[in-house]
Amino acid sequence: MEGVQPASKWFRERQQDDFEIGFRVAKTLFAAESPYQRVEIVQTAGHGAMLINDGVVMAAERDEFVYHEMIAHVPLFVHPRAARVLVIGGGDGGTAREVLKHPEVARVVLVEIDAVVVQACRRFLPSLSVAFEDPRLELVIADGVAFAARTTERFDVVIVDSSDPVGPAEGLFDRTFYGSLARLLRDGGILVTQAESPFYDQALQTAMFNAQREFFRRLHLYLYSNLTYPGGLWAFAFASQGLCPLRDFDAPRFARWPAAMRYYNAGVHRAAFMLPEFVRKRYAAILDPLPSI
Amino acid sequence: MEGVQPASKWFRERQQDDFEIGFRVAKTLFAAESPYQRVEIVQTAGHGAMLINDGVVMAAERDEFVYHEMIAHVPLFVHPRAARVLVIGGGDGGTAREVLKHPEVARVVLVEIDAVVVQACRRFLPSLSVAFEDPRLELVIADGVAFAARTTERFDVVIVDSSDPVGPAEGLFDRTFYGSLARLLRDGGILVTQAESPFYDQALQTAMFNAQREFFRRLHLYLYSNLTYPGGLWAFAFASQGLCPLRDFDAPRFARWPAAMRYYNAGVHRAAFMLPEFVRKRYAAILDPLPSI
Repeated sequence: MEGVQPASKWFRERQQDDFEIGFRVAKTLFAAESPYQRVEIVQTAGHGAMLINDGVVMAAERDEFVYHEMIAHVPLFVHPRAARVLVIGGGDGGTAREVLKHPEVARVVLVEIDAVVVQACRRFLPSLSVAFEDPRLELVIADGVAFAARTTERFDVVIVDSSDPVGPAEGLFDRTFYGSLARLLRDGGILVTQAESPFYDQALQTAMFNAQREFFRRLHLYLYSNLTYPGGLWAFAFASQGLCPLRDFDAPRFARWPAAMRYYNAGVHRAAFMLPEFVRKRYAAILDPLPSI
Repeated sequence: MEGVQPASKWFRERQQDDFEIGFRVAKTLFAAESPYQRVEIVQTAGHGAMLINDGVVMAAERDEFVYHEMIAHVPLFVHPRAARVLVIGGGDGGTAREVLKHPEVARVVLVEIDAVVVQACRRFLPSLSVAFEDPRLELVIADGVAFAARTTERFDVVIVDSSDPVGPAEGLFDRTFYGSLARLLRDGGILVTQAESPFYDQALQTAMFNAQREFFRRLHLYLYSNLTYPGGLWAFAFASQGLCPLRDFDAPRFARWPAAMRYYNAGVHRAAFMLPEFVRKRYAAILDPLPSI
């Protein structure tokens, strides 16, 4: 059985009906039906507090640093000076927290569709939602697709920190949305999107890349090990009109970085773009080639 | 509940009692109590046939290429000419299969403690156990620790393809064993050992590295994404008396490689040694430094 089960005290998430990942639950901290989804935060036995939307793990305190460092720092250390950053989704605050560590970032607009996620995380995931205390952040509770279509503001980096493409995040994987995002990026801008699993979500990734390809001259995929998503090996897509994630990576800026990171470093940045052979081959016709490091 | 459950048709493996990974089981193909462990091979719904020893996933047809390519090709593309290779454990044959793809390998000795594992895999995992048909391979059914202590043969590469350090594999994580292995390596030899998870098995990894450090002048850790082991991010240890896994990597030889691999390539080889910051920092005093790629 899926979902949080009071009797067994295990939360289990299914991946394509043949594979699952489970966490022992000590206590349910929050549970509500929002207008968009079921939002739960549970205290796990081994992974800290964990946000679960519609039965799918979004973030757990113990390892959220992996996902949030990789979605935020890769584009920000490639863009020469990202002053304005748009985050779509990411209502837990973790992505914005990492973005706001960059002193060159003057303004972050975070567009989350579900106010209940923000409220729950502000109360029970303070190490992520700390981002909302930063005066550089503006929180907009709105549909990201509609926001992207109508906003007149322009951004240097756009990060789509979405859940899976079912339920409220469905439109975030659509070509119309990528067209809007391409339009609201300033010259030299970068788009990074949550791109699911290269092992389990091949059809979805192919559709996503084909859609992004229409609007971006450069398209890459980079990988990281997500410990609390099924299968471990997960991906982000990196799209730009020219900036290269390896050639334009500002390693000297990273070397001067004052604060410790927990997952990201210069080696990890470059290594993330070295795709395993089955991934590289599958997308060789869609993604831009990169030299082997 | 752990183990293969006929009623629910799910096999679940626990990691440290608070985290589990589960696979839908279509059918049990083989189940026996060997003198050493419970050996099962099940047909999963999504991952092909899967070998399970004492309730722990060893290998699944769908993704075994990741583990076996990474344990075998990393040392073999660093060693300039590995003629003799010793594999300890690996009774499914997958590691030996990858080793035997190298034309310079004249002889492989595979020492597996449990004949039941070999018999079961020969019948139900033929894509792995194909290695046993190669005339260059000698299969020895024996305790790897005792074999390493007494053999007079010398090897260029030793691969310890072990299960977790409980049950029959316990001695494979012991310092006495590493002393034996250091002694039976020829000059310029390389030892690679299965090194568990850098996220979940930190105390074990520290003990393993400290034990190997006594006998090897160079010690490194490299990572890969194991899709069917809990947590996804898993590790191998690389030990030598001087060969460096980056500087001595024979990329031109890989470029001439005739057959397609599915995970390993030159970029993946180098990327595997780029440790996430939390791993790099923890082992900075034990492991040798490597330049960032």
